[in-house]
Amino acid sequence: MGGFNSFVKLFMPKDRVFYSLFEDVASNLVEMSQVLNELVATTDLAVRKDKVHLIERLEHKNDDYTHRIFVELGQNFITPFDREDIHYLAATLDDVADYIHGSAKRMDIYKVHNINDSIRKLAELIHLGVLELHKAIHELRTMSNMRIITDACVKINSLENHADDIYDMAIAELFETEQNAAELIKMREIYQALEIATDKCEDCANVIETIIIKYS
Amino acid sequence: MGGFNSFVKLFMPKDRVFYSLFEDVASNLVEMSQVLNELVATTDLAVRKDKVHLIERLEHKNDDYTHRIFVELGQNFITPFDREDIHYLAATLDDVADYIHGSAKRMDIYKVHNINDSIRKLAELIHLGVLELHKAIHELRTMSNMRIITDACVKINSLENHADDIYDMAIAELFETEQNAAELIKMREIYQALEIATDKCEDCANVIETIIIKYS
Amino acid sequence: MGGFNSFVKLFMPKDRVFYSLFEDVASNLVEMSQVLNELVATTDLAVRKDKVHLIERLEHKNDDYTHRIFVELGQNFITPFDREDIHYLAATLDDVADYIHGSAKRMDIYKVHNINDSIRKLAELIHLGVLELHKAIHELRTMSNMRIITDACVKINSLENHADDIYDMAIAELFETEQNAAELIKMREIYQALEIATDKCEDCANVIETIIIKYS
Repeated sequence: MGGFNSFVKLFMPKDRVFYSLFEDVASNLVEMSQVLNELVATTDLAVRKDKVHLIERLEHKNDDYTHRIFVELGQNFITPFDREDIHYLAATLDDVADYIHGSAKRMDIYKVHNINDSIRKLAELIHLGVLELHKAIHELRTMSNMRIITDACVKINSLENHADDIYDMAIAELFETEQNAAELIKMREIYQALEIATDKCEDCANVIETIIIKYS
Repeated sequence: MGGFNSFVKLFMPKDRVFYSLFEDVASNLVEMSQVLNELVATTDLAVRKDKVHLIERLEHKNDDYTHRIFVELGQNFITPFDREDIHYLAATLDDVADYIHGSAKRMDIYKVHNINDSIRKLAELIHLGVLELHKAIHELRTMSNMRIITDACVKINSLENHADDIYDMAIAELFETEQNAAELIKMREIYQALEIATDKCEDCANVIETIIIKYS
Repeated sequence: MGGFNSFVKLFMPKDRVFYSLFEDVASNLVEMSQVLNELVATTDLAVRKDKVHLIERLEHKNDDYTHRIFVELGQNFITPFDREDIHYLAATLDDVADYIHGSAKRMDIYKVHNINDSIRKLAELIHLGVLELHKAIHELRTMSNMRIITDACVKINSLENHADDIYDMAIAELFETEQNAAELIKMREIYQALEIATDKCEDCANVIETIIIKYS
């Protein structure tokens, strides 16, 4: 479909707005996942509460970007990629933000005091995945080095597999050691929110792969 | 894209069927959420069981409408809005019905006796959200007063935020007071089903906003 | 839209690849659900572990097929059905594989020793549903006997209803009998994964119905 795509690319200059918005989302996610790691590193409950509030504000910022992408999509007939890919990428990046926020919020409202190595490791994997997303999304604008994009996607897939293993072990240990139903459910919810955040990074990588397949 | 949309609007008269079906779904949801509120208001277990059965029948009716929308979508080349928006709106309205039904069914099969204020408040917020959806959907046919639609969508978003707060407080209290694992999980499932119903109302409002952005 | 569809059908010979890939997925799912039934029939823990590993390998095979469908979809302008239906069918078939794998994996990592009749019945219903999917998907290539497809879809819907009932009863019994929080949550997760697998079969049937409505 090279011919058709070249034809589409003629119209790209008008649509820089999508690249900018996706780059804004990616930078915002880098900040969110960074703050999440600061949150799980501290034992100071007041500091932790501040981090949760900051993540909350960043999540609202993400909602605004996502909303703007949808508005632009509704108003632009020509888009740099297929409309459904733009829609799905924006929605899935928003899911990453939601699950980062969701895990942070649960650590706060459930008053979780034993933030452990599994939680810290999952938070780190989310941050590493988001950094790769950031790289891939910044390459979308020029698509001059496809290798950077595919490498980032491969890396995100392997980070997600790693997160799966950490999650499985954390859950197995939780079931063996935690006797209290409420504590068990709270911890499991936090592990789940963190693990789903890495799943959503992988979903983003999958859309990005779909996009570059079509334009290669 | 005014020109293109005006062109599309020429074909609208043929496609009244979609408006009618969406209006049927909206009226059905109003009835479902009304019955849900009657269910959570009564302490008479026989009455409650009747309400659950009524909700079940209404949910099947909703499935039929949704199915008809999908069939019409498959058979009509020209549609009043983008096909994917019709599909997504129908599917998401169906989700609202599913979660209303799901919450009612769980109160029944789990034999929940302590229907509390949080449950009643969430049921009320669902009903209020559904009434706003009903308003917005009835405006879609003429789109003569966009303000009615946007006001309804803003209202639904604020109802969903309110439901989030009620849910968070209910879950926090549950974790602090309920020692029995089975009871804890049952109540949490019911809160979740109710809260997701309000999320789904918000998702509906978001599609409706997408539709009016495109046709404004 | 008969005229338009006939026009599209002219291009079909080029696109046999989609039929073949969907048939490969269907055959792979038949094998996965077969192995799941062998897994829940045995009490030999070493045999069970082997079955889980086999399901894992088959699930990776399914991922590869799904990925190839998405790649083909990105590279082919003309497709035998609407692009979004191909995408959704592939994604939903992949969900069936994921939930079969998810349920098997949980029985393994949670060291579930009391595999009971409810689990065995749900595994059987999944297998029966997958066999119907296999039938329907093999008919898509020629669409010479629509009745075979619609019958399979009706059957899948009824299997899903049956699975719902088994699930509800199993969960109700679990809540009444299991006092240990960890055991309760583990068993509930396994029931859920099995039940969602049957939901996903129904979702597949629904897309297939959508496809045949458009091409009838």
